[in-house]
Amino acid sequence: MLPGPTNVPERVARAMYVPMINHRSADFVKLYEPCIEKTKQVFKTEGDAVCLSSSGTGAVEASVVNLIKKGDKVIIPVNGEFSNRLSQMIEWAGGKAIRVETKPGINATLDQVREAFDNNSDAKAFYCVWNETSTGTMIKYLDKIKDLTARNDAFYVVDGVSIVGGEELEMDKWGIDMAMTGAQKAFAAPPGISPICVNKRTKKYMMDNPPSTMYFNLPRYFKYYEESKHTPFTPALPLLYAYNEAMDIILEEGLDNRIRRHRTCSEALYAGLSAIGLTPFAEEDSRSTVVVALNYLQNLEDATFRNTLAEEFRVLVAGGFGNLKGKVFRVGCMGEVHKYHVMRTISAISSTLAMMGYDTNPESGLKAAGQRLAAL
Amino acid sequence: MLPGPTNVPERVARAMYVPMINHRSADFVKLYEPCIEKTKQVFKTEGDAVCLSSSGTGAVEASVVNLIKKGDKVIIPVNGEFSNRLSQMIEWAGGKAIRVETKPGINATLDQVREAFDNNSDAKAFYCVWNETSTGTMIKYLDKIKDLTARNDAFYVVDGVSIVGGEELEMDKWGIDMAMTGAQKAFAAPPGISPICVNKRTKKYMMDNPPSTMYFNLPRYFKYYEESKHTPFTPALPLLYAYNEAMDIILEEGLDNRIRRHRTCSEALYAGLSAIGLTPFAEEDSRSTVVVALNYLQNLEDATFRNTLAEEFRVLVAGGFGNLKGKVFRVGCMGEVHKYHVMRTISAISSTLAMMGYDTNPESGLKAAGQRLAAL
Repeated sequence: MLPGPTNVPERVARAMYVPMINHRSADFVKLYEPCIEKTKQVFKTEGDAVCLSSSGTGAVEASVVNLIKKGDKVIIPVNGEFSNRLSQMIEWAGGKAIRVETKPGINATLDQVREAFDNNSDAKAFYCVWNETSTGTMIKYLDKIKDLTARNDAFYVVDGVSIVGGEELEMDKWGIDMAMTGAQKAFAAPPGISPICVNKRTKKYMMDNPPSTMYFNLPRYFKYYEESKHTPFTPALPLLYAYNEAMDIILEEGLDNRIRRHRTCSEALYAGLSAIGLTPFAEEDSRSTVVVALNYLQNLEDATFRNTLAEEFRVLVAGGFGNLKGKVFRVGCMGEVHKYHVMRTISAISSTLAMMGYDTNPESGLKAAGQRLAAL
Repeated sequence: MLPGPTNVPERVARAMYVPMINHRSADFVKLYEPCIEKTKQVFKTEGDAVCLSSSGTGAVEASVVNLIKKGDKVIIPVNGEFSNRLSQMIEWAGGKAIRVETKPGINATLDQVREAFDNNSDAKAFYCVWNETSTGTMIKYLDKIKDLTARNDAFYVVDGVSIVGGEELEMDKWGIDMAMTGAQKAFAAPPGISPICVNKRTKKYMMDNPPSTMYFNLPRYFKYYEESKHTPFTPALPLLYAYNEAMDIILEEGLDNRIRRHRTCSEALYAGLSAIGLTPFAEEDSRSTVVVALNYLQNLEDATFRNTLAEEFRVLVAGGFGNLKGKVFRVGCMGEVHKYHVMRTISAISSTLAMMGYDTNPESGLKAAGQRLAAL
């Protein structure tokens, strides 16, 4: 139940067990082209896709170094570790980050974002971390940004690292120019592959203004793909086989079903864990449907809690990040999370709390969760 | 018989088939710490190591962006695709590449390199591509550079991407400050992990002068490792398991045995393929012991030759790179290459040439190879 790396289905794990192939051959095209086509289907874009052999951070950095030049103004909501890190990368690339800051656990409102656009009519881009994994918040107005970026054709970039495939995304319809994720989150593939999608105008901008960087040089990837459907550098082959299989599973389930499952399971987790006495960290309006962050009860020690949960019940959850270390824990609700995962997690957390001397009410938690899960 | 990705032993391939773990947990430390320790053993260094989740190019780029600053002079021999690419990365980082250029297939002599040092007493670093995979050349004086870099404490960096683990390397003894490779070459692990080793003074320089980059920010990796033996970003877990197993196999065989095997097998390949009428591309003094590049016979068409070899005999070799496309083909002699691979490859190449109407003499090729292989 980690917010990544998430559980990998057998089919996906087995897909890695193949002999090595030449990444400059027709064998590779048979592997890579489907990866690209399925990625575009999941992101809902007619643009281009690249599968980088890196973590999600690599793909996010690629989105910055290929787009942001010296002096470029970039509007970005900041309320946690990952949005802060993205803002840092924008500054490193020479950009000026216009930070729309809110407290961790609370998202900037659309009005606050609009105000930033009003005050910065020369902004070149709007970047946002769709799902702030560090605090369990999720931006819920991705479909309403287009009106703001349209004013001066600013680029609209969505860091969807921990959420694409688990929530609704309409890249082209919502006017998103570039978006990316990591395979080890809602795609339920192993970590190490990070897809990035780019629409036509953004691709053209990048081709006309190539960056001074090698491994994340997207024009180079586009050029290789157009010429031969290869990648410029040796890709992580076993992980691409796994990724390809994971994408099949997503398309077999159907994106709508998958999104409904994520929403229902997270709703059940919030309801069930609240009923046993825990409180979500994020404000209600900002809560994520793929990462459930919870405040620790008073005096509840992080390491003991998570170790007991892991050792006695083999249920893995994540600790807090940065300033929130020891103050919150985080339950992933991504990828292969089904009814029984939710019930088992609530049960195990409740039992762990009881073992540590806290008074919990497991029945009410399981009942509250069960009611929500009936929708599946 | 590709010059990477090379064949992966069963043990290594099977190692990937494990459940996902939390990369912020003791489980991860049990995986990653041995990877680091074994890497240092193979590079023969007491310094630090980092396993990047990227291709070898990523590790090479990391070595540049963490060391080279605006205006830094860097001496670098250039005679092929990879040394040219490295020189480009140095320029992108703001450095000034002092290129010691020779024709493809011929290495700069030590005298030529010395001359570059004589003319550039303010050079901050010497970079070299140890094994130029694109042309099958290998620099053979790595142990003699220390006297030159010692003049003004210039940094000495070895791009060993296609060769570490297959040839003799004494990082500390030879005064090498930083070196790196890709797992999919002489380590016989899958692609996607690239280790980089850095000695103490280079690490200190990097910590004091951190780069404006995220994914390849080595100080960040050092800091995470010191604090928790974690990596700053989600690593490619299945590939690390495979890497760990591949390092065990290397240490079980013993580095000396492994190097002897690579040398003997490449000697047999050169002798055998020459005996059937092919000529090596590289000059004799510059020839690599891990990549054997051969000139195509007149009118011998690249695609037909390699496709026949692949389809009829399932022996994969690589084509030429850049300008050498269609002019040479390259036989890898890295990782899991043993006697029978050499014999089978010579036999299959000879048979393919015969099928394409060329007059070959397979017996003489196999005999010449067999004589060399007797040393194993």
